[in-house]
Amino acid sequence: MNFKTILKPLIIILFFVSLFMLFPTLIAAYYKEPAAVRAFFSVMVSVVTVCGVSFYFLRHWQIHRIAIRESFVLVVLCWVSISFVSALPFYISGAIPNFSEAFFETVSGFSTTGATILTDIEVLPKSMLFWRSLTHWLGGMGIIVLAVAVLPLLGVGGLQLLKAEAPGPTVDKVSPRISETAKILWGIYVGMTVVEAMLLNFAGMSYFDAFTHAFATIATGGFSPKNESVGAYHSAFIEWIVIVFMILAGMSFTLHYKIITGKAKQIFKSTELKVYFAVIAVCSVFVAGDLYLHHVYSVHDSIRQAFFQVSSILTTTGFATADYKRWPSFAQYIIFLLMFSGACSGSTSGGVKLIRIVTLMKLAINELKYLVHPKAIMTIFIDGNVVKKDMIYSISAFVFLYAVSVLTTACICALSGVGVLTSFTAALSTVGNIGPGFGRIGPVDNYHFFSDWVKLVLSASMIMGRLEIFTVMVIFTRAFWKK
Amino acid sequence: MNFKTILKPLIIILFFVSLFMLFPTLIAAYYKEPAAVRAFFSVMVSVVTVCGVSFYFLRHWQIHRIAIRESFVLVVLCWVSISFVSALPFYISGAIPNFSEAFFETVSGFSTTGATILTDIEVLPKSMLFWRSLTHWLGGMGIIVLAVAVLPLLGVGGLQLLKAEAPGPTVDKVSPRISETAKILWGIYVGMTVVEAMLLNFAGMSYFDAFTHAFATIATGGFSPKNESVGAYHSAFIEWIVIVFMILAGMSFTLHYKIITGKAKQIFKSTELKVYFAVIAVCSVFVAGDLYLHHVYSVHDSIRQAFFQVSSILTTTGFATADYKRWPSFAQYIIFLLMFSGACSGSTSGGVKLIRIVTLMKLAINELKYLVHPKAIMTIFIDGNVVKKDMIYSISAFVFLYAVSVLTTACICALSGVGVLTSFTAALSTVGNIGPGFGRIGPVDNYHFFSDWVKLVLSASMIMGRLEIFTVMVIFTRAFWKK
Repeated sequence: MNFKTILKPLIIILFFVSLFMLFPTLIAAYYKEPAAVRAFFSVMVSVVTVCGVSFYFLRHWQIHRIAIRESFVLVVLCWVSISFVSALPFYISGAIPNFSEAFFETVSGFSTTGATILTDIEVLPKSMLFWRSLTHWLGGMGIIVLAVAVLPLLGVGGLQLLKAEAPGPTVDKVSPRISETAKILWGIYVGMTVVEAMLLNFAGMSYFDAFTHAFATIATGGFSPKNESVGAYHSAFIEWIVIVFMILAGMSFTLHYKIITGKAKQIFKSTELKVYFAVIAVCSVFVAGDLYLHHVYSVHDSIRQAFFQVSSILTTTGFATADYKRWPSFAQYIIFLLMFSGACSGSTSGGVKLIRIVTLMKLAINELKYLVHPKAIMTIFIDGNVVKKDMIYSISAFVFLYAVSVLTTACICALSGVGVLTSFTAALSTVGNIGPGFGRIGPVDNYHFFSDWVKLVLSASMIMGRLEIFTVMVIFTRAFWKK
Repeated sequence: MNFKTILKPLIIILFFVSLFMLFPTLIAAYYKEPAAVRAFFSVMVSVVTVCGVSFYFLRHWQIHRIAIRESFVLVVLCWVSISFVSALPFYISGAIPNFSEAFFETVSGFSTTGATILTDIEVLPKSMLFWRSLTHWLGGMGIIVLAVAVLPLLGVGGLQLLKAEAPGPTVDKVSPRISETAKILWGIYVGMTVVEAMLLNFAGMSYFDAFTHAFATIATGGFSPKNESVGAYHSAFIEWIVIVFMILAGMSFTLHYKIITGKAKQIFKSTELKVYFAVIAVCSVFVAGDLYLHHVYSVHDSIRQAFFQVSSILTTTGFATADYKRWPSFAQYIIFLLMFSGACSGSTSGGVKLIRIVTLMKLAINELKYLVHPKAIMTIFIDGNVVKKDMIYSISAFVFLYAVSVLTTACICALSGVGVLTSFTAALSTVGNIGPGFGRIGPVDNYHFFSDWVKLVLSASMIMGRLEIFTVMVIFTRAFWKK
C-alpha cells in the first residue's frame, strides 16, 4: 500500500468538495443566518487552508498511477473524510448539536439514503437545509466521478477510481476518455436537475424548494426541507413531476446519453430497463388496487400514491407523500418487497439493482432446465449478449455479501434494544440507501431514537451500500494487506 | 411424460403408507376412542382396498426404469396424495372439522414443519395426537427413502427418486446398492428415535409422550402433544435430552453411519459440521448472555433456554420451552437470523442448509480476493475437495429460488390481510419447515387465524420447502413438458 499515492488526491478532492460550501454560505448570508454563515465559512476556510498548505508541502510528490488497491482505500477515505468535514457546519452552528447525529445526517446525504435524525426539519436554517440537500446531489452521481470530470490530475487511474465508487455509471461505454465520460454524465445530471427544478417551480414551489427537491430526486436521495416531505405541497402536479423524475433517475445514465445522442432505439434492447418499467407498472397497479379496494383513497389518489411510493422505494429515493405503514397489509408488503431490489445499474439508485436479480433469475431458470436436460449447455443472455461465468460468480457473491451486510447491520440494531422488524428494515434501508423502513422508522418517523454508536454503525452501512459492498469489504480482508 | 410409470409406484407407496394407520387405530382402541377407531380404520381399509384393486387391474403393467422427469412428478404426487389421505382421519373423526386445516396440519407433519392450526392441542384424542406425531416421523427421513428401503419394486430408479426427495440423505456414499443405503439410514433413524424415547421415559415422560416427542425431535418436526410443548414438563433433564437429540438430528445421517462403523475421524473433516457446532455455540452464548444480562432467567436457565431455542430453530424443529417473543431484542434477533439457515445437508432438517451458506461465503471471499489479484485462479474447497463450478451455479440458483419462494409466500399471506412481520416470518417458517415465527405466529401462538386458502398456499410452501424447491418448481417450467 503506497499511502503517498493516496494522500495527494485525497487532499485535492477534499479541497475541491469543501469549495461547495460557498453555496450555503451565500444562502446563509441572503437569509441572514449569522451562525450558519460563520459555521460554513470557518469550516470552508479551514479545510481549504489545511489542504492548500499540505498540498504546497507535497507539491514535489509525483502522483503515480493509482493501482487497484490504492483506489479502494482512496475512495473509502474520500467518502469518510468528506462526510466528516461536511458534518462540521451542522455541529458548529448548533443546528445538530450531537456530532454522531450530524455525521449520520451527512453520510445519509452523500450516500443518497435520505434517512434523517431530525425530528423537526423545518426549524433548521435554510442554508443548513440547502447544504443537506446538496450533499445528496454531490453524492448521487458520485464525488469521484465529479472529481475525475473536473480535475485533470485524477485522469491517471480515473477508471479504477470510478469502478471503486461503483454504483455510478457503467463507465466504459460513453467515451474512450474517462474524464470525458465523467463530464458527459455530470452534464446530463446537471441538466436533469435544472429541468426538474424549473418544472417544480412552475408547479408552484419556491426556487429554494424546487432546487432542494430536484437535488434529492435526481440523486435518488430523499431529503426534503419539509417535515411532510413532498406531501407537504398537497399538489398532484408536483407529485407527478417528482414521480417522473424519480423514474428517470432510476434509469442508467449511459442510457440517457444514448437517448440524447439519438440512439434511443438502444433502450429497447435493455433487458434491465424492461424489467424496471414492468416492476413499476405491476407493483403500482397492485398497490393502487389494494388502496382503492380498501377505500383508503379515491381512484386518482390511489393511482398517484401507489406510483409515488413504488417509485420512491424502488429507486431508493425515500420521499413520502403518505404514511404507508397505515396502508392495508398487501400494499405495505409490496413496499417491503421493493426494499430488496433497487433500480437500474448505472443510475443514482442504491440497493442490489435489478440487473443482478434478473441475471440470477435467468440462472435459476437454466438450473431448472438442467434438471430435465442434464447434458444441455445453456448460457445466459442479457441485452442480447452472453453473460460470462465470472460475472455470475461475482453477482452471486455480491448478493450474498449484501445479505450479510443487511443481517449484520440489523444484528447491531437489535443489540441496542430495537425490535426485529425495525432492526431488519433499518438495515435494509441503510445498506440499500433507501431511507424509510417499517416499525419505528416509517416514512413519517426518523432515526433519532437510535443510540449514538448505532448511528455510527448505520453510517458505515450507508457508505458500504453506496460503494456497493465490495469496495469497503475488500479492505478488511487479509489478502488485501498481504505483500 | 409416461403416467403409467408413475401410477403404479404411486399406488404401491400409498398402499404402504396407509398401513401405518394401524398404529393409531390400535392406540385409539387402547384409549377407548371410538370415533377415532372408526376414522382410522375406515380410511385405512378404503385406501388399502382402492389401492389393492387398482394394483390388481394394473398388475400386467411393467414398471419401466423411472426416468428423471417421472421421478419429480411421482415424488410430488406422493407427498400431496399421502398428505391428503392422512388428513382424512382428522377430518372424519371431527378432531379437525375443517378439511383445509386438517390438510395443513398433515402437510405440516410430513414436511416436519410443526406449524399447527390447533388452538388447544390437548383436547384431541390420544390416537390423533399420535398420528400427528407419526406423520413427522414418516416425513423426516423421507417417505420415498422408506419405500425404497422396504419395497424391492422401487429399486429401479430409486436413486433418482431419492434425489427428487432431496433433503434426506446424500445418498451415494453409504452403500453401492441404493435400497441398502436406504435401509441403513432408516435403521439409524429408528435407532436414534428409540434411544431418545427411552431416555425421555427414564427422565419422567410417559411412553406415549416419550415416543411422540422422539418422533418430532429426530424428524426435526416440532409437534408436541402438549399445549406448552416441551416446556410443559418443567424438567431441565428432559430439555437437555431434547437439545442433544435435536442437535444430532441436525447432523448428516451419513456421518452418523460413519461414526457407528468406526470412521469417527471423518467427522473432523466435515466443514459443514464444524460450522454447525460453531453456530450453535456462538448463538447460544450470545442468547444466554443477553437473557442473563437482562435478568430474564438465572444463569443455568439462561444457558438451557438459549441452547434449546437456538437448536430448535437452527435444526428447524420448532419445539418451544419459552416464548422468545418476550425476550430482549438481541436474543429475538438471533432467533430470527437462524430462521434463514437450517442445519446440515443430509439431516432431517429443512431450510437453506449450512453447506450452501458456507459455499457462498467461500465464493464471496474468493471474489474479494479477485478484486486485488484479478489474474489469480482460485478454487473453493469443502471437506478438502474442490467444489465444481456447476455446484456453485446450482447453489446460487437454489438460494435465489428459495428467496423467491419465501417472498412470494409472504406476499400471499399479506394479500389475506396479515401484517408484514407475520407474513414474512410465516413464509420463512413454512418454506424452511421450522414452525414458529414472529408477530402473530410466535412459539406460543398458532396458524389458526389464517384464511383457509392461505392455509392451502402455506401447505404448498411446506411441501416445496421439504422437497428443496427445485423438485416442485421444475414441474411448472415449460421445458419440463416440452417433448
